[in-house]
Amino acid sequence: MKYFAKINYLGTNFHGFQVQPGLRTVQGELCNSLSMAFGVDCAVTGCSRTDAGVHANEFCITIENNGGTIPADKLPVAVARYLPTDISLYYASECDENFHPRYDAVSKEYVYLIRNRKIYDPFYYGRVWFYPREIDSDGIRLMNDAAIYILGKHDFRAFMAEGSDIEDTVRTVYSLSVKKSDDLIEIKISADGFLYNMVRIIVGTLVDVGIKKIEPRYIKEIIDSKNRSLASMTAPACGLYLNKVNY
Amino acid sequence: MKYFAKINYLGTNFHGFQVQPGLRTVQGELCNSLSMAFGVDCAVTGCSRTDAGVHANEFCITIENNGGTIPADKLPVAVARYLPTDISLYYASECDENFHPRYDAVSKEYVYLIRNRKIYDPFYYGRVWFYPREIDSDGIRLMNDAAIYILGKHDFRAFMAEGSDIEDTVRTVYSLSVKKSDDLIEIKISADGFLYNMVRIIVGTLVDVGIKKIEPRYIKEIIDSKNRSLASMTAPACGLYLNKVNY
Repeated sequence: MKYFAKINYLGTNFHGFQVQPGLRTVQGELCNSLSMAFGVDCAVTGCSRTDAGVHANEFCITIENNGGTIPADKLPVAVARYLPTDISLYYASECDENFHPRYDAVSKEYVYLIRNRKIYDPFYYGRVWFYPREIDSDGIRLMNDAAIYILGKHDFRAFMAEGSDIEDTVRTVYSLSVKKSDDLIEIKISADGFLYNMVRIIVGTLVDVGIKKIEPRYIKEIIDSKNRSLASMTAPACGLYLNKVNY
Repeated sequence: MKYFAKINYLGTNFHGFQVQPGLRTVQGELCNSLSMAFGVDCAVTGCSRTDAGVHANEFCITIENNGGTIPADKLPVAVARYLPTDISLYYASECDENFHPRYDAVSKEYVYLIRNRKIYDPFYYGRVWFYPREIDSDGIRLMNDAAIYILGKHDFRAFMAEGSDIEDTVRTVYSLSVKKSDDLIEIKISADGFLYNMVRIIVGTLVDVGIKKIEPRYIKEIIDSKNRSLASMTAPACGLYLNKVNY
């Protein structure tokens, strides 16, 4: 039996999703916990690699093993006692043997959170980007103006971390919005796929628009240049949340 | 110069506020950080003792030292670099030499948070009481009915942890409200003072009202009995937040 499952996790104390020897990863912890729950070794496949410190509100996985039999609807409770406190598996169902959580994803949505205040707040440690310079309502409007240039199908090479060796850097961004409520800025973006660090570089660049360091229309120049050095800094991992995966 | 300051802290990794030899406490960390910022030893006095795992959105302190001179309005920034990630000092002013943050407090407000859901959420670990059995809107109404018996001046001995040796157990509760929004229950209580574990025992008892294990009017019997064993369990520390101190 092959299972499809949804998990969420606080990324702070993980070296990302994917198993790495000697490091604590989400995949590693899931494999251990599921193997204990099933009583046989389990293989876990994820919908995405996420970096160290990145969080997930909804992350999709498949689980395979030889002979382990727990009814899918009982799996969340069965595995809960074995999971560490920073992971929860909250949904499971049976799935087709051919289903792949990464290749079958049609689109993904990320959320990026910024606390825009001078004063640090311990309750948000590792969960937002603390950005002290004020981004006012005019700045938020400019960020949304800039977002329009990012929407649609483009070659996003300028928004990919240098050193990546992916050849096809064309992606389609379906939606991108910036909202501010009190001192919390929420940037939400969905696309058919994302290049390495793409969301974080987009966020870093939008923030430069918000503080009026660059103009919204400059985004078009950055995209056209296909040159990473024209875009702004990569926003820190800790503000980023994988929010939804659509199949 | 004597300073008055406001701090907030995530209580998860502290053995409470008050200094204890060999244990990590808020007071201990504050003393270290302030002494480094001022360059001379500092004494810190708090508005309350809080238990291990209890949080504070607003906790008031005074700071005294011999010869350290940082303008009060600069203190939050000056000490920020020395503080651990789970404490923030966000306000400071000069105060009268005779001011005492504990004895001069006129009233305090606590908030208690319950996530009322079957499924665990890693983003709320250590920050709420996960309570799986459903408390419906009728239950919330009953909890507010029960709250009425707690309002006012009473001998709250039945709501004090056994083993406490305080003699005067009369306190005046000014307000007590229970609200539920989605699966988050917020219980807010203000009083002229609180006995040891009083808020947590009140919360545990109100929850028993919410699940219809006891009736609202039974609260009056509990108070009149002055007997701890009639009240319900002590709710876990992790859901409790000192929210406001009034002078």
